[in-house]
Amino acid sequence: MNALQAYKDLMSRSREIAHLDSAMELAYWDQRTNIPARGHAHRVRHLAAMAKMRYRRLTDPRIGDLLSTVEDSSLIDDRFGVVSVNVREVRRVYDRLKRVPAKLATDIVRAGAEAEAAWEKACPKNDWPRLRPFMERLAAMKREEAELLGYENEPYDALLGEYEPEETARSIEALLGPLSAALVRLLERIDYGRSNRMTAPTTTRVSVPDQEHFATEVARKLGYRLESGRIDISSHPFATGLGPGDVRITSRYNETDLREGLFGVVHEVGHALYVQGLPTEHWGEPICHVASLSIDESQSLIWEFFVARSNGFWNHLLPDLMAAFPHLKALSHEDVVRWINQVNPASLRVNADEVTYNLHIVLRFELERDLINRVLEVKDLPAAWIEKSHKYLGHRPTDHRGGVMQDVHWPSGLFGYFPGYTLGHVYAAQFFHRAKEELGDLDEQFSRGEFSHLRGWLRHRIHSAGATFRPHDLIRRVTGEGINPLILVEYLETKYEGLYGV
Amino acid sequence: MNALQAYKDLMSRSREIAHLDSAMELAYWDQRTNIPARGHAHRVRHLAAMAKMRYRRLTDPRIGDLLSTVEDSSLIDDRFGVVSVNVREVRRVYDRLKRVPAKLATDIVRAGAEAEAAWEKACPKNDWPRLRPFMERLAAMKREEAELLGYENEPYDALLGEYEPEETARSIEALLGPLSAALVRLLERIDYGRSNRMTAPTTTRVSVPDQEHFATEVARKLGYRLESGRIDISSHPFATGLGPGDVRITSRYNETDLREGLFGVVHEVGHALYVQGLPTEHWGEPICHVASLSIDESQSLIWEFFVARSNGFWNHLLPDLMAAFPHLKALSHEDVVRWINQVNPASLRVNADEVTYNLHIVLRFELERDLINRVLEVKDLPAAWIEKSHKYLGHRPTDHRGGVMQDVHWPSGLFGYFPGYTLGHVYAAQFFHRAKEELGDLDEQFSRGEFSHLRGWLRHRIHSAGATFRPHDLIRRVTGEGINPLILVEYLETKYEGLYGV
Repeated sequence: MNALQAYKDLMSRSREIAHLDSAMELAYWDQRTNIPARGHAHRVRHLAAMAKMRYRRLTDPRIGDLLSTVEDSSLIDDRFGVVSVNVREVRRVYDRLKRVPAKLATDIVRAGAEAEAAWEKACPKNDWPRLRPFMERLAAMKREEAELLGYENEPYDALLGEYEPEETARSIEALLGPLSAALVRLLERIDYGRSNRMTAPTTTRVSVPDQEHFATEVARKLGYRLESGRIDISSHPFATGLGPGDVRITSRYNETDLREGLFGVVHEVGHALYVQGLPTEHWGEPICHVASLSIDESQSLIWEFFVARSNGFWNHLLPDLMAAFPHLKALSHEDVVRWINQVNPASLRVNADEVTYNLHIVLRFELERDLINRVLEVKDLPAAWIEKSHKYLGHRPTDHRGGVMQDVHWPSGLFGYFPGYTLGHVYAAQFFHRAKEELGDLDEQFSRGEFSHLRGWLRHRIHSAGATFRPHDLIRRVTGEGINPLILVEYLETKYEGLYGV
Repeated sequence: MNALQAYKDLMSRSREIAHLDSAMELAYWDQRTNIPARGHAHRVRHLAAMAKMRYRRLTDPRIGDLLSTVEDSSLIDDRFGVVSVNVREVRRVYDRLKRVPAKLATDIVRAGAEAEAAWEKACPKNDWPRLRPFMERLAAMKREEAELLGYENEPYDALLGEYEPEETARSIEALLGPLSAALVRLLERIDYGRSNRMTAPTTTRVSVPDQEHFATEVARKLGYRLESGRIDISSHPFATGLGPGDVRITSRYNETDLREGLFGVVHEVGHALYVQGLPTEHWGEPICHVASLSIDESQSLIWEFFVARSNGFWNHLLPDLMAAFPHLKALSHEDVVRWINQVNPASLRVNADEVTYNLHIVLRFELERDLINRVLEVKDLPAAWIEKSHKYLGHRPTDHRGGVMQDVHWPSGLFGYFPGYTLGHVYAAQFFHRAKEELGDLDEQFSRGEFSHLRGWLRHRIHSAGATFRPHDLIRRVTGEGINPLILVEYLETKYEGLYGV
């Protein structure tokens, strides 16, 4: 077989796996939006069976032969050409997966599904003892997986590598250490209690359908097209790309706080615009994927934080907001901007503001790193959580729902995932900073309801490249420099000292 | 490998294929209920890719070896034991599929999806010329498939065999000939214009949500549980079993005729009760399937025709109907029973009454038989349809929507499928007749809102056996005699001469 044939065979396999992925994405979407109560048990088995089929295809030894054939050829001479990128990514996944036996891989999927189901039931009852055995089983499996995957410095790196292959626990520590110190200092300099005086927005109940209608209009304004998507309700907002022309998002709504649903939608619109902007002519090949978890998150955060919490955006949206929700009419533009930028260290991570967001992440990073590195046990997580929450946020959660059971990530088996959020925030600040340099006064554009320049710029500079560049290359190509958390810190200091500075 | 190991391997493969089926069923369900407009093109490709994976697994040559090993063993000594049934069905599908090359099999799936999409667009515009080339391509492929599958008497038998392995065109002809003659005679003896004098039910518009609410309550009364299902809207009603605890149905609603949506739901509830009653401890094995298309249809028709159009049922439901739809208050019980049993030879098949239903089927059977046997060409279908419609129903459709484009079956690639409807109706009459003999006065039970005896009887005698017995065995075991259309004819004569006899 010649190299071109080998490459074609690899891509044909890749497309087949992408169809299995697409089927699983639909099954997950349905599980979170539509499934009847008694359908869950079968759906868990179904997803495990599909994951098994997917795994067997991804680790077919024939892939190793095909990869070698292509890698020994001139097809991959152009480092950032389509073939090289596709081959690089197939190699990365293949090498990673073949280190983990099929049994463990599928056991982890099943244990994650079971723990997530247990979390769904235990969470409303604040019932950590119910969740704990599931978490212990899962943590043991993830530790075993880390050992099998291998690492240079510490087991945690092996898991982090699934989401951010260029990072290690040490590089994350080096980023989060100074960043969290700067954020703690910023928190001390702002009077975030000031915005709590505005009670009007959260004492009037607003119907969910009214909120959905408003959020949908905002999504349209930002460029999300309902002809190629849907917006549904789920208990945790997410975006999912089922295929070209079908990129769906969900949100959840709080009758007494319309920020939750609205910013949930805007966040997911950011993800959806990224997926819609990928090079879909290569659908099913690795290049038609997001560059990484962190770059994906940067795209949602640009829209959620840098666009939808800006002065300009609310200049544009204020009349619509007042028309849709008359109980807000007494608020000034300044009130609204303060309200939607309220700083609250006691909030949950998913509702957190820009200032405290990364303090939530450093807490989770330190705990999961210690857990996987066998420095900490599952039974010690609740107490350790409270201690770190007090250290970074000055807040001690009073129940497990606000503490160790706050996020679905760990019960779902996602360890090593959280750092991607901070990387994403840092990248978002850098991308946005660069966009302003190239596109002029974005705030002014947002005031006029113009989002197409920013959207077009993101599509051109980031989305359309798909997985061509890894994050370190991408940030350098787009902004001219490597990862730099100072851009984020300066943005936050300027914005929040202006809003709430003491 | 010993026979037991071979059998276990076969069942493990069967379960894997069942998971692919389940994923495809969800994709079809979503395509018909939720998909955004621009998602269709990808979904068609997705379903074709999944069908290809499924086909490759079903025709893996290793299955032939495994089957031989089990078939040569004592494992299948008990003809109606689980092992024998599972092996019989794997053998049937394997032998059938391996005669058709993978390329043709997937081409047919794709051509069917494309023709169905063309039909969706062409139908509202009555645009047969747009659909015709798709149909010609598909018919050519189905003729080729029939030749490859092989047959004793005529090509049509090869396609019919997919749905009703025990039947041939001749056996269907022998059933439909006398049945249709009896129905035409019955039509002549009843004054079906009489019920058309009732205009009230169809001049008042009734909102779709109100109809959905009512139909859902009826579904509950009959025993359909929303904890393990859903009722959605789609342009063609269907039922789909995604797995244990998740059997969904859909219906469509007509604002000026609430019979459409209501009977659509009741029909699909019949299918759903069957699927819910299958031996789910064997989920993923062939035995946990409906016995055949015809037996499946018998279950929906028992509820739609024999239960929901009975006197007793409307004794029970009348107060609820009047409360939900006050514009019907002027109607007497007799009026309602006549109205829901209105006989109208000019209606579409999906809305047809019990008397004319099988006259629709004989028309389609004769046309598709001639088409597959190369006696008739696609271009000749419209004229032939009108002629046969006049012959059997005394009605000449004035447009293609009421004629050759009336059903989605042919554009979807379903040839040889229609006879299952008549077989189902005949079986339904026989099953219901037997149920009355064993359970006493069912009409009296329905008057009291009691449906559990009939439901339990169907579950015990038919559903729980799954695919154990083929239709000819099943009808004999349950009723003590073979297929007998006279039971249906007598039931119809008694009922309709009473309602509308001249």
